[in-house]
Formats: sequence, structure tokens, C-alpha cells
Amino acid sequence: MKDIQPEHPRSESLKIREKLAKGLEKGLVSPAGLAAHGRGEAFDYLLGEKTTQPAKKAIRTGAASIVKAEEPVFSVNGNVSALVPDEIGRLSKETDVKIEVNLFHESKEREKRIANHLKNHGVEKVLGTKKEHSAEIPEIQSGRKTVDKRGQKIADTIVVPLEDGDRTEKLVKNEKKVISIDLNPLSRTAQSSHITIVDNIVRTMPLLIEEIKDLRQQSSNKINEIIKGYENEKNLEKVTDIMLNTLKKESKEGD
Amino acid sequence: MKDIQPEHPRSESLKIREKLAKGLEKGLVSPAGLAAHGRGEAFDYLLGEKTTQPAKKAIRTGAASIVKAEEPVFSVNGNVSALVPDEIGRLSKETDVKIEVNLFHESKEREKRIANHLKNHGVEKVLGTKKEHSAEIPEIQSGRKTVDKRGQKIADTIVVPLEDGDRTEKLVKNEKKVISIDLNPLSRTAQSSHITIVDNIVRTMPLLIEEIKDLRQQSSNKINEIIKGYENEKNLEKVTDIMLNTLKKESKEGD
Repeated sequence: MKDIQPEHPRSESLKIREKLAKGLEKGLVSPAGLAAHGRGEAFDYLLGEKTTQPAKKAIRTGAASIVKAEEPVFSVNGNVSALVPDEIGRLSKETDVKIEVNLFHESKEREKRIANHLKNHGVEKVLGTKKEHSAEIPEIQSGRKTVDKRGQKIADTIVVPLEDGDRTEKLVKNEKKVISIDLNPLSRTAQSSHITIVDNIVRTMPLLIEEIKDLRQQSSNKINEIIKGYENEKNLEKVTDIMLNTLKKESKEGD
Repeated sequence: MKDIQPEHPRSESLKIREKLAKGLEKGLVSPAGLAAHGRGEAFDYLLGEKTTQPAKKAIRTGAASIVKAEEPVFSVNGNVSALVPDEIGRLSKETDVKIEVNLFHESKEREKRIANHLKNHGVEKVLGTKKEHSAEIPEIQSGRKTVDKRGQKIADTIVVPLEDGDRTEKLVKNEKKVISIDLNPLSRTAQSSHITIVDNIVRTMPLLIEEIKDLRQQSSNKINEIIKGYENEKNLEKVTDIMLNTLKKESKEGD
């Protein structure tokens, strides 16, 4: 992972990957997480590795939903903690979104390592790591049903970056408003969320924080207008079209 | 990575990923390798996770080129060793293809671990790990220029599964016939190889071995016909079209 040359056509992408490899060394990221990240990389490549217009729209609508929410929670897994710890620190300090750790591959030690890592990056209170606060979302099977009773259990709005499809679907069934960040527009997470931000979380987070800070100053009328003016299916279609065009362009170059 | 439920829509893909995670534990696979694998997974998803007709054509043509070659070499990196060790063992026993280790992230210890792993899976002679046999392909920059003077240095035909674009291009410049196995049809490796097998190596290897065994029985006339009847660019286009259709179908379902 060392010596990434800046002229390498994918140097940005390789630098992000390096963050995850370091996360693996630190015990924050699981091997499966690294592979899942690579999967996302391919879709990012088809996006042109930039935040598209439909992604910007989803980010703004997501921010409006967070501002409108009474109990917004941001769910953190290993990859998320390794990729955007500073931004999670800022999110917790500059907005009133709660931060909760929830792992696909449950491990109490890894949860604690992630919580400490987040605390070192400015998050004062990390939910999801203490047994005495644990509750269940019974619709979810497996260890992932465990949530924090001060967090995802009572949350009305949950941001799930890099989430598993099954859990996303069950959170929606549990009547949570779900905002996902997912590079694969075809995934079950992307398809079942209320608001799907198809973008690289590294690019999304600073924009999301700025939008939340901006929209907190706006009238609730304005907030509601943004939310009403958004259709997730149409927005996902636009993103998929952008990916289609990348493939088409390359396909034609082979003519 | 444990407890993959067979009814999970991606259980096959998750099982393959688990092989790599185990390879990481054993010190065969690098963290970067795991991420790169995930990248491939996304393209495999767009392929429908099956060996397509154009892939079958490329496998047959690749086999014909291997049969025709005087010095065919199969290049092995960490991911390849973790994913298809048994098939590499069979390839070395049932054909006269030489097996050579070549790593993107050079490490003498990892090379030796991979060589031992391959020996345990039936490869008698593993090239690429001994200093006294090392030579260089000067066109290639960085540590990857080191090859075995009994292997890739004198090879006329090299199979490069899951290869880096830069090295592939330089091998072509060095007048090697390059057969790549790569899930991304847009990658530099895919675009610069003579024969690009766009398929999951786990599915490709058994087919490739069978084709080699079959074609060894055929006349050299027949072999030449297969090679002449193949156009890599057109074949790549067909694969890209299959991926396009997957995206289109999903896009329409959102209508």
C-alpha cells in the first residue's frame, strides 16, 4: 500500500484504500470490510469518482431529514470509523446527531476499539458499546438486532453508511426513516432506503455536515419543501444512468 | 465471515471472499489484495456471477495459445494462490505450464509462504522465489520487474490473473503474448492484453485446464484457426454489453 505515486490514475482511490488497510492493522476494520470496500470502489469508478448531481440532491435531502428529526442517529461500522473519523467527530460536535457503533461482524473488542478511535477524533459520547444500554430491534435476525436503547432503538431517523441490505430493510419496516450512503445503486440497501446517497462516504461527509449546518438556519417550511421535492427512485435512476454512460463510453472506444 | 447462510443472495460470492480472508490470516494475501478482490466482485455482480459466452471464447483461445506456446508461464500473486491453489496444482501436473510467483507488493517472506502453499497443493516446482534465478524485465518499473530467468524472462506466453495494468502493458511491450484473467473489462490490463478472460478466476480455472487438455489432442491447424478467429476488442465489447444490460435492467425496474 506504500509509495502511491500521485500520477497514478487511481491515486485518490488507492489513498482511501490505504486508510482501510491501516484500519485493519489497528483492528477497526474486518477483512470482509476491506473486500466490501473494494466492491464499492468499482462502482465509484463507474461514477467517475466524483460527487454527482443526484448525490448532491440526496445529501441535501438527507440533511433536511436529519434537521427535521427528533432523534437522529448516525450508525458507525469498522469501515466508516477508519475512513471518516474526523468527520464523525465534527458531526457529533457541530450537530446534535448521536453516534452509535453497530457492526456486521459483531465483536465486543472491536466495538470498543472503534469507540476509542472515535473518542480520539472528538466524539464525546459513543453509543452501542455497553451491555446495560442494549436493546433489540426484533425484526432483525442475528447479532445485528442489538442496538442502543438511547440510540437506534428510539431513533426516528438513522443514517446507515455502508450498511447491509437485510438490516436496512428491517430498519425501514421498524418505521425508522433511513438515509443510506452506498456506492452500489442496485444494492438492497440502496433500493430500500428512503434517501440513498450514492457516493463515496469520504466525499459525502463534509458536504453532509455543511448542509446540516446550513439547513438548521432555515425555516421548517423550507425543510419540508426539500423533503417533499425528492423522489428516491428517480434519483437512483439518474445515478444508474451516469454509470451506464461510463460503461457505454468505454464500450464505444473499443469499436 | 462466518455463518454464511446458503439462502443469502450472494452466498457464492461471500464464500469466495472468505477464502481470501483466510488467505490474509495465513499471510498469503495483502490487505490491498482483499480490496482489489472486492473491486472485482462488483464487476462479477454485473456479469451475473457466471461465465459468459465471450468469457468461454476467451478461455478457449487462451488455452489454444498456451498449447501453441513453447514456454508458457502462469503468474501467481497472493489472491490467486488463495483462491485457486488446487487448480494451480492441477495445471502444473496435467499440463506443461510453469508456475511463477510475482507479487505487486513484493515481500520475500510472502513469496515463500505462497510457494509453500502451492507446493502443499501439488505444484512441484515454483519459480520466482530464489534470488540466484532472478532476472529483470527492464521495461517494468519498481520491484515488479524482477522475474525468474527460467520462467517469465524467457516465456513466450504468460497468463496473468488479477494483474496490475502497468505490468501487463510492459509485458506486451516486451513481446510476450499476454493472457489475462480480469473481471474489469475497462481496466488497463483488460484493454492491453492479447486475450482477456473477463471472468471470476474461480470459475475460469477448471474450464481453462479442460480446454488445454482437450486442445493438446487437436491438430496445430485447428489450434491456429481458434487463435485466428478471435478478436479481443470485439470480445471485450460483448462482455461490456452484458454488464450494460444488467445496469439497464435494474435502471428500468426503477421506472
